[in-house]
Amino acid sequence: MNRKLPSPLRGIIPPMITPLLEKNILDRKGLECLIEHMIAGGIHGLFILGSSGEGPSLSYNLRRELIQETYRIVKERIPVIVGITDTSFVESVNIAKVAADVGCDAVVIAPPYYFHAGQEELIEYIRHLIFELPLPFFLYNMPSLTKLTFDPDSIKRIVEFENVIGLKDSSGNMIYFHQLQYILKARRDFSLLIGPEELLAETILLGGHGGICGGANLFPSLYVKLYEAAVADDLFLTRKLHEAVINVANSLYNVGKYKSSYLKGIKCMLKEMGICEDFLAEPFHCFRGPERQIIQNNFTRLRTEIKDLL
Amino acid sequence: MNRKLPSPLRGIIPPMITPLLEKNILDRKGLECLIEHMIAGGIHGLFILGSSGEGPSLSYNLRRELIQETYRIVKERIPVIVGITDTSFVESVNIAKVAADVGCDAVVIAPPYYFHAGQEELIEYIRHLIFELPLPFFLYNMPSLTKLTFDPDSIKRIVEFENVIGLKDSSGNMIYFHQLQYILKARRDFSLLIGPEELLAETILLGGHGGICGGANLFPSLYVKLYEAAVADDLFLTRKLHEAVINVANSLYNVGKYKSSYLKGIKCMLKEMGICEDFLAEPFHCFRGPERQIIQNNFTRLRTEIKDLL
Amino acid sequence: MNRKLPSPLRGIIPPMITPLLEKNILDRKGLECLIEHMIAGGIHGLFILGSSGEGPSLSYNLRRELIQETYRIVKERIPVIVGITDTSFVESVNIAKVAADVGCDAVVIAPPYYFHAGQEELIEYIRHLIFELPLPFFLYNMPSLTKLTFDPDSIKRIVEFENVIGLKDSSGNMIYFHQLQYILKARRDFSLLIGPEELLAETILLGGHGGICGGANLFPSLYVKLYEAAVADDLFLTRKLHEAVINVANSLYNVGKYKSSYLKGIKCMLKEMGICEDFLAEPFHCFRGPERQIIQNNFTRLRTEIKDLL
Amino acid sequence: MNRKLPSPLRGIIPPMITPLLEKNILDRKGLECLIEHMIAGGIHGLFILGSSGEGPSLSYNLRRELIQETYRIVKERIPVIVGITDTSFVESVNIAKVAADVGCDAVVIAPPYYFHAGQEELIEYIRHLIFELPLPFFLYNMPSLTKLTFDPDSIKRIVEFENVIGLKDSSGNMIYFHQLQYILKARRDFSLLIGPEELLAETILLGGHGGICGGANLFPSLYVKLYEAAVADDLFLTRKLHEAVINVANSLYNVGKYKSSYLKGIKCMLKEMGICEDFLAEPFHCFRGPERQIIQNNFTRLRTEIKDLL
Repeated sequence: MNRKLPSPLRGIIPPMITPLLEKNILDRKGLECLIEHMIAGGIHGLFILGSSGEGPSLSYNLRRELIQETYRIVKERIPVIVGITDTSFVESVNIAKVAADVGCDAVVIAPPYYFHAGQEELIEYIRHLIFELPLPFFLYNMPSLTKLTFDPDSIKRIVEFENVIGLKDSSGNMIYFHQLQYILKARRDFSLLIGPEELLAETILLGGHGGICGGANLFPSLYVKLYEAAVADDLFLTRKLHEAVINVANSLYNVGKYKSSYLKGIKCMLKEMGICEDFLAEPFHCFRGPERQIIQNNFTRLRTEIKDLL
Repeated sequence: MNRKLPSPLRGIIPPMITPLLEKNILDRKGLECLIEHMIAGGIHGLFILGSSGEGPSLSYNLRRELIQETYRIVKERIPVIVGITDTSFVESVNIAKVAADVGCDAVVIAPPYYFHAGQEELIEYIRHLIFELPLPFFLYNMPSLTKLTFDPDSIKRIVEFENVIGLKDSSGNMIYFHQLQYILKARRDFSLLIGPEELLAETILLGGHGGICGGANLFPSLYVKLYEAAVADDLFLTRKLHEAVINVANSLYNVGKYKSSYLKGIKCMLKEMGICEDFLAEPFHCFRGPERQIIQNNFTRLRTEIKDLL
Repeated sequence: MNRKLPSPLRGIIPPMITPLLEKNILDRKGLECLIEHMIAGGIHGLFILGSSGEGPSLSYNLRRELIQETYRIVKERIPVIVGITDTSFVESVNIAKVAADVGCDAVVIAPPYYFHAGQEELIEYIRHLIFELPLPFFLYNMPSLTKLTFDPDSIKRIVEFENVIGLKDSSGNMIYFHQLQYILKARRDFSLLIGPEELLAETILLGGHGGICGGANLFPSLYVKLYEAAVADDLFLTRKLHEAVINVANSLYNVGKYKSSYLKGIKCMLKEMGICEDFLAEPFHCFRGPERQIIQNNFTRLRTEIKDLL
Repeated sequence: MNRKLPSPLRGIIPPMITPLLEKNILDRKGLECLIEHMIAGGIHGLFILGSSGEGPSLSYNLRRELIQETYRIVKERIPVIVGITDTSFVESVNIAKVAADVGCDAVVIAPPYYFHAGQEELIEYIRHLIFELPLPFFLYNMPSLTKLTFDPDSIKRIVEFENVIGLKDSSGNMIYFHQLQYILKARRDFSLLIGPEELLAETILLGGHGGICGGANLFPSLYVKLYEAAVADDLFLTRKLHEAVINVANSLYNVGKYKSSYLKGIKCMLKEMGICEDFLAEPFHCFRGPERQIIQNNFTRLRTEIKDLL
């Protein structure tokens, strides 16, 4: 169906953060810089408007603009997949249509996240959505934000539907991930991707297809090299790079007192690196003095440590 | 500031369900019928686009249409307040502007519900929002859906801002509600409203101002009479009507196996009563055979029991 | 069956804290002082070895000693009911036998709290327990600590068993409490008691039988008077005393940074009042400097405010 | 300090289930049979009275008997470590003393699990415990049952105490596990063990020391071989055995409708294998007809599949 989208999709597909100048103004220069930075690092695809992309916090106009600009900059060098998760079915479809019109390759959908739905409701929702989606799609399991897990039994039924080509699991629960691998082992075209980068090494070593790892916004080649080492069964190198990834996570994602430290840390660091602005959409706000200082210090140290590895 | 909006707002302000013909088509005839049914029952205001109104599940076009139609039908007989809760700050403000342009009286805002925000972030979010909101607003505490409670200490700070005129608490936690009453007792113009109708009697008996109770879509005069009995310190009648409300909740809100039983039960019953269609926005779907039968049976019984009381 | 135990049990039955000199040494003098203080305040019964009594944190020898000493001091002036909640069925029965041998009136049992049990398992557990319990018993719904709620449907089945004479609800969820009242309204001998004192006023106003309120360790007559005012339909006085209870809770139970503030606050205050020592069983430890100072200041204020009321 | 206990402890240390004839009667014959079965399979140690051992559900007499019998049967062939987790500090110490007197090698302690403690309280609790523990000990992180996680920052402080020799992590959260590995990498004598067997492969591949895996009660040599393959960097064999472990988990741990399926499944299967009785301590009960049939069918299939691998 799609010239550019491998089946299954493999590798490092960063969940791109959305560079902003203000609440409703895209940092276009930063966007270009960030995309070129990641493509130069060897990434295998780009996922926009996910959680790291603050998708649900952006206005619809901004989401449309971001899709167009990203596609324009990427110029079909790598696949672009677009988050369409929304509490409104109709608006999800609207965004999917924009993505298709522009030329993107696939969409990504998590369960609607306001109400508590049940598994049958979730399956029916996906079934209805398929009729209206103009692109193949990935499921997005993100229970801490959507309050709903795709049960393995539901997955068994959903993968029978047309156009479901993969799943990104951000539950952080590798027991669940291995269960999915087990029940999907006959589906060789179905892409199983991990969210949290701390789990990338084991995901690839034990048969997963890739990672949608936030840190690849910052150090794309680190994640690409880790992926490649694991695919090549190079355990020695895999362990070293895995440890570097844990180092990144420990240095940048736990600064500040709220759960948004991950997002703030990445944006703050990108600004330090001169790549883009670090404005965050409401309800978040960028790091101020003390947290910024910690990130700066860790940045200096990390840059050296990672350069030595690559 | 507002001719029609009492300070504090008191009484029964039903969280109106949104009558739908299809996923993206308003049941205009049903809407008119439902509004007249509730006004005839003596309600003191109308709250649209809340959780019972499936606000977050509706497209933006439909939300705009609903605001306009509701205002047209109500004709300033009672205050209309409009839910603007959204994960996108910009879209929240957009809806608030529609509400103001049309002539509505206030808006209602819960915390953005995708990401996990902290209390300081929540306070700053509200502070930023106030600059852009064209109407006074109510806070909406709904932790089971938004994953975030307005801490009493945050409330103390937020009520110092301009234009915050009340709070709807749907936590179901009366310890929390009494704490709010205690810390806000000097703010006689601030309206403290309860969400769950099972808690309406005690809310009013112990000094709360009113209820935003879903069952008032069905039996508005039952809730109005309960409110009036409690305001009048008529404990005998309050207990009888309170028991009838518990009866409604037990008969209609626990049918079906998912957490959406409340919404499905109310819409199903409204259809049984000939008031409007019972189509639900995704990810929900109306009751089918067996559940519908239970609702029908309970309806027949309930109608008699409630008629005897009123 | 029991000379001293009214059916249903009504009124204020304080969940007595356990005065300790050291980790495994009872403060016998403090115990006597505390019991006389509460009986002088007019309480209607005494509940020992509950959560406020740190039951699960005490050694079995200490639990036995406490049961014997309490019974000796109370001298049958009021009913004594004994918490036997344990993760081990056999040890629960052992403690129940001690309570029966000593002459206590009933026992109280929450679900075993280590493993996650299901409702059928819970019902069967209770059914098996009944065969071995030598005393009538109260159910104790405490989901925040036991990870399990007694579902209303389970309650319907359990109350058919022999010897179940009441339920203490510490869920803080008045919707649940009203549901239980509704389904149990034909069981006039079954006692429905509330745990959190913030909910005592509405519990009694709307037909509940009493409260197992921690603050009654401190100011027993305040809670007894509130109970009596609500039973007498004296809404004016009920509101005043309810507000005083909220004042106690706000002044004493939120000091310190952990969830144990309630327990530490009560013990600290009892020491301030000269009633008993404030040693806590592991994993808790009594308030030190700054928290103690806050409690002392609030104590001085509270004592005056409450004296004026009584 | 201890002749038999390697530093760090490595390998497969099954969390032994406790064979019972009745609620309070040990299945001594089954115990002997089970221990010999596991030692024959090559296990590196034995952990008794953990969650799989239903420790908290057993009477203290039974716990003492189990410790003595296990030690007698094991005859110092492998280290025996004993769970002493309890809500009562004093009873934890009592059990630890029994373990020491009998000759066991270490104890295992999770946070007290009735009350919600904070991190400072947890650290102080451990510090106090150390003064009274006669044996070195492992921490046990089991947040789903104890409601409390050992925060990485708390771990950093606790490992400075004497006699803390390792940690078993049953959180199922590999992000957390990798964080612990990162902060403890200088502590080469500290043993990091995983609970859930689905995570054993990646734990060993990425530097963890071993697994306390329930399935090793059933198929000890499967887990020992998986451990050995991963230690030897044999990725091909590791993947095959990892898949077999997932197969065991999927076949046996999800039968039945409650969260206790894991425990019931293992005990049911052990009875099928003729090793011991499958009586469970309250509040659980062994599988009856339909579930037993599923386990039997899966057993026949599994035995063949696993035999082919070993």
